[in-house]
Amino acid sequence: MSIPEDALVVFTPSGHRGRFPLGTPVLEAARALGVDIDSVCGGRGLCGRCQVDLCEGSFAKHGVTSAASHLSDKSATEQAWEQRRGVLDPGRRLSCASRLLGDAVIDVPPSSQVHRQVVRKRAEVLNIELDPIIRLYLVEVQQPDMHVPASDLRRLKDALSYQWHLPQLENDIRVVQQLQQALRQGQWQVTVAVYNDQRIIAVWPGLQEKVYGMAVDVGSTTIAAHLCDLQSGEVVASAGRMNPQIRFGEDLMSRVSYIMLNPGGELEMTRVVREALNQLAEELVQQAAIGVEDILEATLVGNPIMHSLVFGINPLELGGAPFALASDEAIDGLWASEIDLRIHPNARVYGLPCIAGHVGADTAAMILSEAPQLSEELMLLVDVGTNAEIVLGNRERLLAASSPTGPAFEGAQISCGQRAAPGAIERVRIDPETLEPRFKVIGCDLWSNQPGFAAAIAAHGVTGICGSGIIEVIAELFLAGIINHEGVVNGALAERCPWVLADGRAFAYLLYQDDNRSLCITQNDIRAIQLAKAALYAGIKLLMEQFGTDRVERIRLAGAFGAHIDVKYAMILGLIPDCDLAHVTLAGNAAGSGARIALLSRQSRRQIEELVRRVEKVETAVEPRFQEHFIEAMAIPHKRDGFPHLLEEVTLPPPTPSQNSLNRGTGRRSRSR
Amino acid sequence: MSIPEDALVVFTPSGHRGRFPLGTPVLEAARALGVDIDSVCGGRGLCGRCQVDLCEGSFAKHGVTSAASHLSDKSATEQAWEQRRGVLDPGRRLSCASRLLGDAVIDVPPSSQVHRQVVRKRAEVLNIELDPIIRLYLVEVQQPDMHVPASDLRRLKDALSYQWHLPQLENDIRVVQQLQQALRQGQWQVTVAVYNDQRIIAVWPGLQEKVYGMAVDVGSTTIAAHLCDLQSGEVVASAGRMNPQIRFGEDLMSRVSYIMLNPGGELEMTRVVREALNQLAEELVQQAAIGVEDILEATLVGNPIMHSLVFGINPLELGGAPFALASDEAIDGLWASEIDLRIHPNARVYGLPCIAGHVGADTAAMILSEAPQLSEELMLLVDVGTNAEIVLGNRERLLAASSPTGPAFEGAQISCGQRAAPGAIERVRIDPETLEPRFKVIGCDLWSNQPGFAAAIAAHGVTGICGSGIIEVIAELFLAGIINHEGVVNGALAERCPWVLADGRAFAYLLYQDDNRSLCITQNDIRAIQLAKAALYAGIKLLMEQFGTDRVERIRLAGAFGAHIDVKYAMILGLIPDCDLAHVTLAGNAAGSGARIALLSRQSRRQIEELVRRVEKVETAVEPRFQEHFIEAMAIPHKRDGFPHLLEEVTLPPPTPSQNSLNRGTGRRSRSR
Repeated sequence: MSIPEDALVVFTPSGHRGRFPLGTPVLEAARALGVDIDSVCGGRGLCGRCQVDLCEGSFAKHGVTSAASHLSDKSATEQAWEQRRGVLDPGRRLSCASRLLGDAVIDVPPSSQVHRQVVRKRAEVLNIELDPIIRLYLVEVQQPDMHVPASDLRRLKDALSYQWHLPQLENDIRVVQQLQQALRQGQWQVTVAVYNDQRIIAVWPGLQEKVYGMAVDVGSTTIAAHLCDLQSGEVVASAGRMNPQIRFGEDLMSRVSYIMLNPGGELEMTRVVREALNQLAEELVQQAAIGVEDILEATLVGNPIMHSLVFGINPLELGGAPFALASDEAIDGLWASEIDLRIHPNARVYGLPCIAGHVGADTAAMILSEAPQLSEELMLLVDVGTNAEIVLGNRERLLAASSPTGPAFEGAQISCGQRAAPGAIERVRIDPETLEPRFKVIGCDLWSNQPGFAAAIAAHGVTGICGSGIIEVIAELFLAGIINHEGVVNGALAERCPWVLADGRAFAYLLYQDDNRSLCITQNDIRAIQLAKAALYAGIKLLMEQFGTDRVERIRLAGAFGAHIDVKYAMILGLIPDCDLAHVTLAGNAAGSGARIALLSRQSRRQIEELVRRVEKVETAVEPRFQEHFIEAMAIPHKRDGFPHLLEEVTLPPPTPSQNSLNRGTGRRSRSR
Repeated sequence: MSIPEDALVVFTPSGHRGRFPLGTPVLEAARALGVDIDSVCGGRGLCGRCQVDLCEGSFAKHGVTSAASHLSDKSATEQAWEQRRGVLDPGRRLSCASRLLGDAVIDVPPSSQVHRQVVRKRAEVLNIELDPIIRLYLVEVQQPDMHVPASDLRRLKDALSYQWHLPQLENDIRVVQQLQQALRQGQWQVTVAVYNDQRIIAVWPGLQEKVYGMAVDVGSTTIAAHLCDLQSGEVVASAGRMNPQIRFGEDLMSRVSYIMLNPGGELEMTRVVREALNQLAEELVQQAAIGVEDILEATLVGNPIMHSLVFGINPLELGGAPFALASDEAIDGLWASEIDLRIHPNARVYGLPCIAGHVGADTAAMILSEAPQLSEELMLLVDVGTNAEIVLGNRERLLAASSPTGPAFEGAQISCGQRAAPGAIERVRIDPETLEPRFKVIGCDLWSNQPGFAAAIAAHGVTGICGSGIIEVIAELFLAGIINHEGVVNGALAERCPWVLADGRAFAYLLYQDDNRSLCITQNDIRAIQLAKAALYAGIKLLMEQFGTDRVERIRLAGAFGAHIDVKYAMILGLIPDCDLAHVTLAGNAAGSGARIALLSRQSRRQIEELVRRVEKVETAVEPRFQEHFIEAMAIPHKRDGFPHLLEEVTLPPPTPSQNSLNRGTGRRSRSR
């Protein structure tokens, strides 16, 4: 029997196959076949990223009999790696240190793939392929030779060109400043970070295995940040904090007003929000036990005013018609230091593009995360905050608008409103017979009428009502007949039960009372929610009208507020149009997810940049039809629109015949933006 | 007679010609024909850069009869311009505001050409075509329209693309930060500065007509800076100051030693030299009555150690073999703020490339200025400073080296040496019969033996001797036979004249004496100059040997020192090899000229970047032959080399037969670099 001179190797899951001379390292064979295997150290047995699994057995499908003995024994390199990092699972090998001695089926696990899928929560959305703009490369650099006086930088670039096929790289000056020491300290081995395959932006002596990026959603109220491992795509830390600009104004327009009244105030707001970003970065790196200089990139999203302030652009023009954005391009390749972000000194920042004066990078990020442009069905995306961002569309067309809902949904402007925190009422039911309420508070799983509730909440008490609680209580008031379609509390009920109370010339509903406080839903509270939901619904209607549709097929509710509401109650109240309730789902922080996608996928940036140019922008503030839609949407759930899907699951009270004084009242509402 | 419907126009000096419909603006015709006419305002009659001269008469050569009446009368635009800026000379018109009414010959004066020649002092060098990397463009930007929500930046870029054919521009974030205010303040007209046809780096409301650049030569001892109008190429201000790093060490190697002994000392040296650059910038703008923010670019040259320190690179590696440069690339497109240069916040910096560990960007700049690569003849370029930079070559080959001459040529290490300043002796003659000296001092045109000399110098007196004076006095001492070929003072002459004096165990020559001081040339002074000139000559010889030649055809002496010496005396002393004296000329601050060329000509940057890669570097420190050449060059003018060209003009004393004790002494000289 003649000894075979080469071996057949089959890589899974790709299915790439080929014959190689005996003794060929598995990594080399994989590369030759174009199999996607990660490596930072370039096959030196240092980084351990190129792990593969040898599959044992006869694989009829591949025509290969594969056995452990078909790979070389563990070499000194591989053993040294195991000593440092821990023994590999049986069958798992470093592909760079394993040589083919016979036919083999080799599986490349996802953790060893460069372009592995970033795990997403929703199956229906295209998975994101990991493709960070910054990658690490270990290189061995030739030592200087006085008689061939090429500089250290040139020899580094030659090595990158030869060893990693990265020709003609540019570099930051700081790389030159650090290079000589790094080379000598690393004994002529350094790891470099290469930005966009084009530019060396960092250098470390020896092997540097991990770098990080942070994805930040700068909201008017809260700022949320995630720290991601740029090699694995994993979120390794998350943090959030209040936007310190709140002291200049609760909502966007009051912040712009502050600037109008205090020229130069925008500089102060820029300063404080950037400081908050730095504090978040500190918090993230503490959680992850790394240093701020390990963060090499940040992606930022925010509404146009937040976006402007973070990037040092005065948002004054966004305070009045024609609401001209300074820029609607992505902010690409900025240095972190240009926004005073103290992470790696050469770190870059990517700001997603804003779409229009009122439709920001947060909306672009939501589109990136929810991908309505890939949907056959007509999707409605709503990010409910102080401003609601609305996107309507499918693979044919995308429309976007924002609507000034105000802070009522977040508990502001509500007499007993508060932010979502332990002690806040978040769920409410009202007995349709007795009209008695029961509720749940954040931090406790019991309903208020269940035994042990008082003890369970003793630590924080019942302190107020948060956004999702407000939605539910008003919807329940409506279902119980305590308020009518026009939102007016039926004062006659005060005689029938103790929960309806006179409150000046109007009536209120008593939700909770103890020695310290009583929590009432007043007529004014109801009106505030009606105004907010009418603004949101009117914006949605405007987009539907522009699109030429009277129904949507799928609704995604995003944002911190959207993350906790019961979509049924949102629909009963008429925040959103009718839709099969099974198709109305919560998207969580879609803007934040979009920021993270942009951080991890270079291609996604080009996609969203291209996509936002195609979005049709609808300016609610100047659409004459908006006011009309707004007035009709003051009614609960709506003056005119039917809710056939909702009615299949819920019985709504019959319409009240009387004229609606509240609706007439809204004509006076100032829509200053 | 039928009225012609179009007119023939001929532009001079280009000779471009064509027919255009009557009424065509001259600027439009010029553009259609590709005639080079400047314009910042784009033909709006604002900037006045497009001035042309109408030539009157019959031009047989062109077949055209041209008359003043063949252009339209001065329009309101042109009259308004004249009111603001002064009446145009007869026949001169704004080409944008003049329309063709008949055949015309139109001359475009150099001041109206974009790519006009930058005037150079030397006719034999290719003139530099003005082509700054930063250009200004006035644009009219569409006002925002809420229903087409393109951002201000997008409309600006659209306008630049449409009006100036500059598509797909990038921009600095600061441009976005300033854009909205500039557009509104300029009533939708702004001027932008575009860098390299690629990137908007500045924006001003309305018309901004001028921006400036500074070209800086950072020498070990002095820093020289020129402020240039980037539109005209003109030098509008010049300033110089001492390099404040001198307090860390007089010469380069003592500064590197300082860093070796004081880790972190490089940061302090970087700080002080950058501060000096800022002071120079301040001084330049004061002279020119502009603001620092009007400077949009700086080009920098310096030897490798100065270059490193300015750019924040620790020069430690340059202190010892193998003298590895951190980078030998041009430093391109750096932000001025990255080197703490407080000019326009978006200003850029260009650092010419270094060539090797001892051959810096100053040498690259000298090559750019002197263009030996274009020469048929074999050229020797020498920049004499504390380190001498030497370039030898022609259109076939270029060789470069540096040689550690030390600071003797600059007056340091000389007992009565001083820098070139009023009171310093700069010219010396010694009567060959009486051995009596006469001299001239800086600040006075009289020889010391002429009537009125004492009165003329009363203000400053005679304070010392500067570099050119040292060269002359030692050469004259040699010509007069007071010192021999070996540089030894003939003590026997002390008996014959009062100017040769015993000085310890050796003898000295008394050059000047008054009540306050006596200025002597000591044996040690002579030895210091011999060491310096031997180092220079040895470096030159090494290059000549490598080139395979024993003669050079043209010599250019550059540098502050080189600017004042009498080349004949330099040759008598043996600083430079024999050459036809008519072909030995002074180049002035060639490095500074090179910096200025790089500032004004984008193409020159690509040329020098390409050229330095071709330069053959010779490392004098490790060439065994250097020491040999050095010892031979200690003799005056040289132990072995003949000076046939020099002997045609000067009679040199016959060689002394005796053994040269000094030459043997030099073997001990430490060449620590």
